[in-house]
Amino acid sequence: MTPAETPRSGAVGSDPAGRPRLAFLGPEGTFTEAALRRLVDPAAADLVPASSVPAALAAVRAGEVDSAVVPIENSVEGGVSATLDDIGSSEELQIRAEVLVPISFVLVGRPGLALADVRRVSTHTHAWAQVRGWMHAHLPDAEFTPASSTAAGARLLLPAERADDAGAAPVVDAAVCAPLVAEQTGLPVLAEGIEDVPGAVTRFVLVSRPGPLPEPTGADKTTVAVPLPHDHPGALREILDQFATRGINLSRIESRPTGEGMGRYSFSIDLEGHLAEERVGAALAALRRSFPGVRFLGSYPRAERRAVHVPPHVTDEAYRRGADWVRGILAR
Amino acid sequence: MTPAETPRSGAVGSDPAGRPRLAFLGPEGTFTEAALRRLVDPAAADLVPASSVPAALAAVRAGEVDSAVVPIENSVEGGVSATLDDIGSSEELQIRAEVLVPISFVLVGRPGLALADVRRVSTHTHAWAQVRGWMHAHLPDAEFTPASSTAAGARLLLPAERADDAGAAPVVDAAVCAPLVAEQTGLPVLAEGIEDVPGAVTRFVLVSRPGPLPEPTGADKTTVAVPLPHDHPGALREILDQFATRGINLSRIESRPTGEGMGRYSFSIDLEGHLAEERVGAALAALRRSFPGVRFLGSYPRAERRAVHVPPHVTDEAYRRGADWVRGILAR
Amino acid sequence: MTPAETPRSGAVGSDPAGRPRLAFLGPEGTFTEAALRRLVDPAAADLVPASSVPAALAAVRAGEVDSAVVPIENSVEGGVSATLDDIGSSEELQIRAEVLVPISFVLVGRPGLALADVRRVSTHTHAWAQVRGWMHAHLPDAEFTPASSTAAGARLLLPAERADDAGAAPVVDAAVCAPLVAEQTGLPVLAEGIEDVPGAVTRFVLVSRPGPLPEPTGADKTTVAVPLPHDHPGALREILDQFATRGINLSRIESRPTGEGMGRYSFSIDLEGHLAEERVGAALAALRRSFPGVRFLGSYPRAERRAVHVPPHVTDEAYRRGADWVRGILAR
Amino acid sequence: MTPAETPRSGAVGSDPAGRPRLAFLGPEGTFTEAALRRLVDPAAADLVPASSVPAALAAVRAGEVDSAVVPIENSVEGGVSATLDDIGSSEELQIRAEVLVPISFVLVGRPGLALADVRRVSTHTHAWAQVRGWMHAHLPDAEFTPASSTAAGARLLLPAERADDAGAAPVVDAAVCAPLVAEQTGLPVLAEGIEDVPGAVTRFVLVSRPGPLPEPTGADKTTVAVPLPHDHPGALREILDQFATRGINLSRIESRPTGEGMGRYSFSIDLEGHLAEERVGAALAALRRSFPGVRFLGSYPRAERRAVHVPPHVTDEAYRRGADWVRGILAR
Repeated sequence: MTPAETPRSGAVGSDPAGRPRLAFLGPEGTFTEAALRRLVDPAAADLVPASSVPAALAAVRAGEVDSAVVPIENSVEGGVSATLDDIGSSEELQIRAEVLVPISFVLVGRPGLALADVRRVSTHTHAWAQVRGWMHAHLPDAEFTPASSTAAGARLLLPAERADDAGAAPVVDAAVCAPLVAEQTGLPVLAEGIEDVPGAVTRFVLVSRPGPLPEPTGADKTTVAVPLPHDHPGALREILDQFATRGINLSRIESRPTGEGMGRYSFSIDLEGHLAEERVGAALAALRRSFPGVRFLGSYPRAERRAVHVPPHVTDEAYRRGADWVRGILAR
Repeated sequence: MTPAETPRSGAVGSDPAGRPRLAFLGPEGTFTEAALRRLVDPAAADLVPASSVPAALAAVRAGEVDSAVVPIENSVEGGVSATLDDIGSSEELQIRAEVLVPISFVLVGRPGLALADVRRVSTHTHAWAQVRGWMHAHLPDAEFTPASSTAAGARLLLPAERADDAGAAPVVDAAVCAPLVAEQTGLPVLAEGIEDVPGAVTRFVLVSRPGPLPEPTGADKTTVAVPLPHDHPGALREILDQFATRGINLSRIESRPTGEGMGRYSFSIDLEGHLAEERVGAALAALRRSFPGVRFLGSYPRAERRAVHVPPHVTDEAYRRGADWVRGILAR
Repeated sequence: MTPAETPRSGAVGSDPAGRPRLAFLGPEGTFTEAALRRLVDPAAADLVPASSVPAALAAVRAGEVDSAVVPIENSVEGGVSATLDDIGSSEELQIRAEVLVPISFVLVGRPGLALADVRRVSTHTHAWAQVRGWMHAHLPDAEFTPASSTAAGARLLLPAERADDAGAAPVVDAAVCAPLVAEQTGLPVLAEGIEDVPGAVTRFVLVSRPGPLPEPTGADKTTVAVPLPHDHPGALREILDQFATRGINLSRIESRPTGEGMGRYSFSIDLEGHLAEERVGAALAALRRSFPGVRFLGSYPRAERRAVHVPPHVTDEAYRRGADWVRGILAR
Repeated sequence: MTPAETPRSGAVGSDPAGRPRLAFLGPEGTFTEAALRRLVDPAAADLVPASSVPAALAAVRAGEVDSAVVPIENSVEGGVSATLDDIGSSEELQIRAEVLVPISFVLVGRPGLALADVRRVSTHTHAWAQVRGWMHAHLPDAEFTPASSTAAGARLLLPAERADDAGAAPVVDAAVCAPLVAEQTGLPVLAEGIEDVPGAVTRFVLVSRPGPLPEPTGADKTTVAVPLPHDHPGALREILDQFATRGINLSRIESRPTGEGMGRYSFSIDLEGHLAEERVGAALAALRRSFPGVRFLGSYPRAERRAVHVPPHVTDEAYRRGADWVRGILAR
């Protein structure tokens, strides 16, 4: 994270020396840690592992940390519900930056165990979903033991870890985890690149309490959540119209239930552009009029740094010209 | 016209005493004169008959008169092309007020002539179009002699007028004209209410050079002309979208050729609302961005004085709330 | 007109020898006659001049003639109201073919008269509208005498014609007319190419009673009239949506009042394609469901013979594939 | 399931006596079992527990069972990714029926343990997500051990079960599960109604290989999956337009990643109506033309049995009228 992007240095939650405190979905060795290392200099920050996405975000809201790094979308599994639902409701937070982390899995085993002898495999449910095909082909009879994270699953293979768990450790032979975990633990790698869909990536975001927006870079995105009113069948079309009439592309649109009953949705949307750009500000103001529950979740640079194409009729300059024209008439 | 509506009293073109000068499509006795009498106090203004709509509007542009009263739409014949095309191109003008005039026709004849003896009828082409059915039923063999106005057609029946015309008067037996002309000339009425469509009305507008807009009344309309770009098949839909997404109803939409080739159109549009209202200003600014040739032709009270229904999400208050929300975020 | 396009040869209204009878907006020398000569072989048909567009169309409906040639659109003046309104209401007719005729005007004068001496000019109102600029520049003081057609205006200059009119001929010095009229009458040409907008064209259509449609050529258009229901502000957008969702371009769209009151419109539309094409048939069936008053006015080859671009997802083949898929599921 | 809804009785996979075989997401005691009992008579069918949604659906595809009952949507957690992704890709399946099951959770504990002594709680990740608030309020320090199902989590509390697991049972004190599990296991209930959102329901569907559609009932829904083409920003709007122009309401719309890269989505949609209804057949045929990857996933009665409102212009009768009109013209 460049200094410009650092959210409110010295804010509540930083330690006496002013070092930012960052929560991440621990334990160490997860993909979130890899994401975090791309967003901040680990040596310059205090890293605070959290047990879950809601716990990480709660720590931000409570001021215990300055920011949290959480996954928001996976190219295979889709939106990360825990993140989308948490930032889409509850006290408002703001995304400050995003990063893409390639997702590749290895199978690590108990020292001395051969691949053919693996009977029970542990990992996080999401990771399991991404290696199901490989497992079916290579270890069709292996049973799955869910773990709270890929790193936690791997650690079940460590002698020390098992002792810690008071002799109650499950009989796990192998674990699916990130290559980083294999490095950190020294566990033997039984197979690598076992993900069913090669090239998968997960998008992580840096989230903090609401504050100043990063400056527009010309390659930004804006995230909003729009709860659809009930019994308004045209609402989604209306939302899309508000963006389309202003030449704004959406790079992600996902429905999430609001939890208020079957058929009640909120749409989580990433659009191309920064709130400080006229067309984006106008579109969000329009959404706010029709959908008062709309929530602004941040304008920040796109991970790909690819410049946003802005059609000539909706540039800031075009907006200025249009507004000036109207103002000129009213001032006659 | 109430004083409040009087455009810039004492402006260029008024006579020394400061009386406003108004051009109207003469001669006397036309429906335009009837419209004019509803818009201004004839005793307090100098009325200047003009030979054509373009002539009346040219007099306004030249500063020879303050305003002109011209027909813009007829409930039977449609938009008045001469008016729409003139105000849609050439130097900009501004509509200040409108009025609806019921259109009813009488047939006046040469003194002493019976209806059965009518062979040749004169009137303006538009009037002729509106009594064709009656003519076909009652005077199927009558021939039509076009006149430059309904009053001009009637005046051909007057002895004095014929002498004026140096003995070259056409052999006209009767004329179709407004009841007012029968009164003014004393010509005998052979038949009345001869219009094919009872209840027809013509809308007239008071036009002046660009100036301050009348105050919003809550029952206003705004007139614009939007030339469609060539080879942009979705342009009309885009225009409609800009209004629809802002909850603005259109009360009139008419296509007019731009004269630049077959298939090149400009759309003449009346929308419900006043430019000073946020949703209207935003919609027009949007049109200006996509269609730089858009022309503002006035915001003014609707003739019917019926209040415009503004959906709750596009009131000025809603616009303020939406804009404040965005501004608040940007000011963090 | 090629034989293939001849509507129902030997139909009611043809003379004993089977020659087709065609009405046209007379008298001779008008642009309509020029249009007619491009559509049929004048030697093989009986040409019947009519005094007005409604008269020509009434002759078709009555079976007195097989077809009529009438103007429908001018690149400068716009839709020809008399034609659009007549075919848009009353007993149904069908357009069989169209042709474009370049519109250029000459000024003819009384023999021996110089341009500088012209005081009064006659022509049809529409022609006058198209030379106003030239007149203003070259004959600013000339007065206008409306005539029922450009040819009729010119004929007022002929000595014989004036005698016919029983000494009551108006004092007309010159006439604006088609070059063809100058040829036919031998009147001296005082100026040529006097139209304000060079390159103007008028589109004429061949209209007959409803019958078989010409075969699709891949370069066709279809004409419809859609009366908008009252108090249905979204109706126009709905119509455009029905075409847009089926990839159909509109080459002309014009509003016409229905005559039932201010703000009541019918839209006259030309769309690219032939009713026998699936996407066109589906779009028209959809319009029929929502707007039962929709009127089919013909599918016929475009004057320009330019092939219609049909996007791949709405070809007849694509329609077949889509329908087959649904049928296949229902037949399980 | 009424006999009418039984898919192809005697089909591949039924046992010699012709009893249908049904897979469900086991083990016993899950909400899926409750759903299944509402859809079929358990005494008349062979129930086959499956270890996962993909396993259940694979058994259907392989012909090992006739049908499977799987969860598809939860009013709190949203679409069930495993189900949506499986039926949205891979070999085609068909939904035959749906049922809504209220979701309420109890906390069961090890015999003899008090609520205050609970340290570690097991359940399925989805169930955990639905009781987080209660846990935070009543057992803030409890740790979560993921289980493969709510029933599996509860069974960890049973002495026999622990022995089966070779002494390696995790130290779990309590489990979150369905009330049915408490009944079936006899485990003491420490708390009930602990779900954060009261009134939550899960929708389950009965899925089989493609076959005849259930008859339309007037209260049906149709499920489709539409993979959006890449780099076609207007695709979602186009899909919505195809439904909107045919008066079809959507009761569910959810995005799912296709797994082919970030930003590649498929939309899973439930629409109101049955494929045998004209407007639905036409809309799906239209989708098929533009999005050849569209997948039909069944037309079946809505769980609520509420009749679908069909606007008058899109009834089957209206479709017939529209099509007849077009056909009549083409047959002239």
